[in-house]
Amino acid sequence: MAVYTEVTDEALRSFLAAYPLGDLIAFRGIAEGVENSNYALKTRAGDFILTLYEKRVDPAELPWFLGLMEHLAARGLRCPQPVQARDGVALRELAGRPAAICTFLPGVWPRRIRPEHGAPLGEALARLHAAGADFTAIRPNGLGPASWGPLLDRCRAGGDAVHPGLITELDRTLSGILAAWPAPGQLPAGQIHADLFPDNVFFLDGPDGKPAVSGLIDFYFACTDLLAYDIAVCLNAWCFETDGSFNVTRAHAVLAAYQRVRPLSAEERAALPVLCRGAAIRFLLTRLYDWMATPPGALVTRKDPLEYLAKLRFFAAAEGPRAIGL
Amino acid sequence: MAVYTEVTDEALRSFLAAYPLGDLIAFRGIAEGVENSNYALKTRAGDFILTLYEKRVDPAELPWFLGLMEHLAARGLRCPQPVQARDGVALRELAGRPAAICTFLPGVWPRRIRPEHGAPLGEALARLHAAGADFTAIRPNGLGPASWGPLLDRCRAGGDAVHPGLITELDRTLSGILAAWPAPGQLPAGQIHADLFPDNVFFLDGPDGKPAVSGLIDFYFACTDLLAYDIAVCLNAWCFETDGSFNVTRAHAVLAAYQRVRPLSAEERAALPVLCRGAAIRFLLTRLYDWMATPPGALVTRKDPLEYLAKLRFFAAAEGPRAIGL
Repeated sequence: MAVYTEVTDEALRSFLAAYPLGDLIAFRGIAEGVENSNYALKTRAGDFILTLYEKRVDPAELPWFLGLMEHLAARGLRCPQPVQARDGVALRELAGRPAAICTFLPGVWPRRIRPEHGAPLGEALARLHAAGADFTAIRPNGLGPASWGPLLDRCRAGGDAVHPGLITELDRTLSGILAAWPAPGQLPAGQIHADLFPDNVFFLDGPDGKPAVSGLIDFYFACTDLLAYDIAVCLNAWCFETDGSFNVTRAHAVLAAYQRVRPLSAEERAALPVLCRGAAIRFLLTRLYDWMATPPGALVTRKDPLEYLAKLRFFAAAEGPRAIGL
Repeated sequence: MAVYTEVTDEALRSFLAAYPLGDLIAFRGIAEGVENSNYALKTRAGDFILTLYEKRVDPAELPWFLGLMEHLAARGLRCPQPVQARDGVALRELAGRPAAICTFLPGVWPRRIRPEHGAPLGEALARLHAAGADFTAIRPNGLGPASWGPLLDRCRAGGDAVHPGLITELDRTLSGILAAWPAPGQLPAGQIHADLFPDNVFFLDGPDGKPAVSGLIDFYFACTDLLAYDIAVCLNAWCFETDGSFNVTRAHAVLAAYQRVRPLSAEERAALPVLCRGAAIRFLLTRLYDWMATPPGALVTRKDPLEYLAKLRFFAAAEGPRAIGL
């Protein structure tokens, strides 16, 4: 939940004056999104989301993110579409921060995952990958495999205080992951979301009464990386029960629906287990780092890194692609 | 900023089925309001606010709060209006909490107070008092003068660690306030908001380009108490600059606009200084208690109690009604 930067009404007024959106009707902080400040904005022209980009986002990368969202939306993907001001510029400044207005997406993110969410998620992810195929600008994954060793080093001093023996276990597991990681060019790459957790996927009931994806949001970890790694992130984020058990039926539903749009190659299928371990250690490491770095009393909810230790151990022990739903 | 209780989509769906509001379009947590969980709800019928009442609110008191809001809205005050389900009942249960849907109010609360906010605030407060005059159910002020001694006692052990000498100063000041407090029946009483801080007052530009109050929200501290005490709360909440100085021009604007609707009696004017000290110590004490009771790492932003020590000292030193804007 996040509103880090407050916006005075004068600043908001002069910011909005650049847009053809009509009079301001309402402006409320949204308790969602961890990285940036998000506001629900209502004007005569309708509902929008105003985002102020906070410190973790490099302003130099914002044109890539906004360009990707524009590209995906133009190809029919339901994602936030940056709104251009009268001068044609979407990325502006407000309250000393880079800021942009995007279109509002209907839908509700699922607080509790149900079996019916798996297939629409898998299909939406594959459609995202297809829609991004002709977006040619490259953004390397700053939280990809090359970053995990340095991240682990930064957690070395305090990690065992979070969980005894953690650092030794991660050292060993990370070596195994990196040794088995696909070589560059070995698997299809493209634009991936890289953070497609349940709170970034909106659903509405379709005509058949089943949940249908109404929008994907929060593209600020998106990057150019292995497409199948994006699937591995989803299996981590969507397919574990709250008791830590892996729901292989749901994983199968995600994978089967994905493959109806884009079938995985034999090499991708073979690599998926290590990609799942990689995704688990990526979220474990960033959560561990944040856990150790977040001062007590901070506004941000600290996410439990040990949830991902359990997921990492599951994927490390899983035998063969079938155990993970393939 | 507050979402304490998460709502699953199944629970939301069956909750909404009781209302004639049409299909669900969106549901987002709002980063505003400290006591309860608030969601922006959009359905085919329009925009609403769904509130889940958290632990601090006594469920037995909710009918009084909702009844007051209904009453005020029926008298033309712009405040959230509880929406009745098909069975005529507005107060229901969701995710194990009492819950209600209220109408959405347009407007933006002022992050920075400007001179033009004072008069519309004062007028809106007086209109609130007038609209509540024929709401006869009484709710005693649980955070009124009788509560301040016990609250101070609960802060006694740790208070001086927050600020050296604090408890001694508060003991002395509180004795003075209680000794000078108006006797029951001495001043006009009625339904007061009791928490009319800037984030509870929405503004939109009027036809003259000046800010006009578009709504008052968050009536969950409302109670039956001295009307002039509500003014004292506003002078505390609206009339200090961020550097701690008292903006007497703004206070005068609030008071003058209030009195154009409801002139203060000579006794109310004479009592206003001690009411201001009382309001200052009330917010000081609850903030101090929360400060000491909030565990590190909690989701809630702790509000600085010492801001109100400075305000208390200002009002204690202010000489006569003129010094506070009368």
